[in-house]
Amino acid sequence: MEVKVVERILKANDAVARSNRSRFDAAGVLVVNFIGSPGAGKTAVLEQTVKGLRGRVALACIEGDPYTTRDAERIAALDCPVVQINTQGGCHLDASLVSQALDQLDLAAADLLLIENVGNLLCPSQYDLGEHLTVVVLSVTEGADKPEKYPAAFQRAQAVIINKVDALALTDVDLDAVTAAIRRFNPQAAIFPLSARTGEGVEPWLLWLEDRVKAVR
Amino acid sequence: MEVKVVERILKANDAVARSNRSRFDAAGVLVVNFIGSPGAGKTAVLEQTVKGLRGRVALACIEGDPYTTRDAERIAALDCPVVQINTQGGCHLDASLVSQALDQLDLAAADLLLIENVGNLLCPSQYDLGEHLTVVVLSVTEGADKPEKYPAAFQRAQAVIINKVDALALTDVDLDAVTAAIRRFNPQAAIFPLSARTGEGVEPWLLWLEDRVKAVR
Repeated sequence: MEVKVVERILKANDAVARSNRSRFDAAGVLVVNFIGSPGAGKTAVLEQTVKGLRGRVALACIEGDPYTTRDAERIAALDCPVVQINTQGGCHLDASLVSQALDQLDLAAADLLLIENVGNLLCPSQYDLGEHLTVVVLSVTEGADKPEKYPAAFQRAQAVIINKVDALALTDVDLDAVTAAIRRFNPQAAIFPLSARTGEGVEPWLLWLEDRVKAVR
Repeated sequence: MEVKVVERILKANDAVARSNRSRFDAAGVLVVNFIGSPGAGKTAVLEQTVKGLRGRVALACIEGDPYTTRDAERIAALDCPVVQINTQGGCHLDASLVSQALDQLDLAAADLLLIENVGNLLCPSQYDLGEHLTVVVLSVTEGADKPEKYPAAFQRAQAVIINKVDALALTDVDLDAVTAAIRRFNPQAAIFPLSARTGEGVEPWLLWLEDRVKAVR
């Protein structure tokens, strides 16, 4: 019973995701869905991306969160158009929530839309939002075993950001081990070790993303 | 539709949880449900608890994980009886999964059963497993805004472990701010700042838990 309902929900979601994708393509906007654990640093990565690409790319953001508007406020402080989605405790964004948020954004004015999903490595990986790229944000403090435990998110990603490399010294984590763990589930994904806190390693990620935006324009 | 099905599932879960609780009470076992993000350090906290209470309390563990048996292997290495539940990507443990795992444990021989839930701050907080205590494991590297964003888990907890305090120096996080954030959603919970990696601060947690086991015996 539960499985059948979930299948029906996912089918309905896919239809709305297709419609979202058509809107994105018609507007010439590249859309990225950021998935990661609570506290992986998704918002900090978005802040660095908005700051780094400012003047190079026209940006907009959608912030997903169970309850607060904290993340949207952090993005708005950078003068970037942003819409907050509160899921009221819900564990993932879905295409329909994103579709409603799109009505409050000037898509035609944007080249790149960053969507921060709810902090959760499991449920968001089941729901297509209509995005072109999925990026997983993993922090080194979470340990090297996460790809093996949460493979769906990693398998779906075109890029994985390994965040908080400035904290490596205070963990037992080895960056090569994390990279190898990601590679086992996704040999193709681009991998960017960086610190959204210090800015270290951010530039290669910005260049990679900017190249993808240019390919759409 | 989705809401109604979820309500029905939760009702069915509650019935099995009540039956689990009767089994626990009949066996005189105190049962603790550990909830936290991926990489918060739940398994490391269980390892410290098993090592620290060895000889003082008879322990058993149930390990929940989307796919791997890594965590159960870490607990088994400490000569503690352990059963692994793999949810096959599922985002939480439920009472029925725990009930099946109980069939593989000698409950009568245990004083304390530690259940590690799937790494997820959202979905597990909806499902009663029949436990007596819920403990949230939060790592300082996740930031101080987690209680506000994921209130259900924190509201439900009798104790919150603030893990990875050895990494505080490499974060912008203030321990007082994390404690205050927890207090806003749960004024009663016992709060234990500790490092499961270095062992710092573990003893007060062990004493608190041992007291609760004694109250049941």
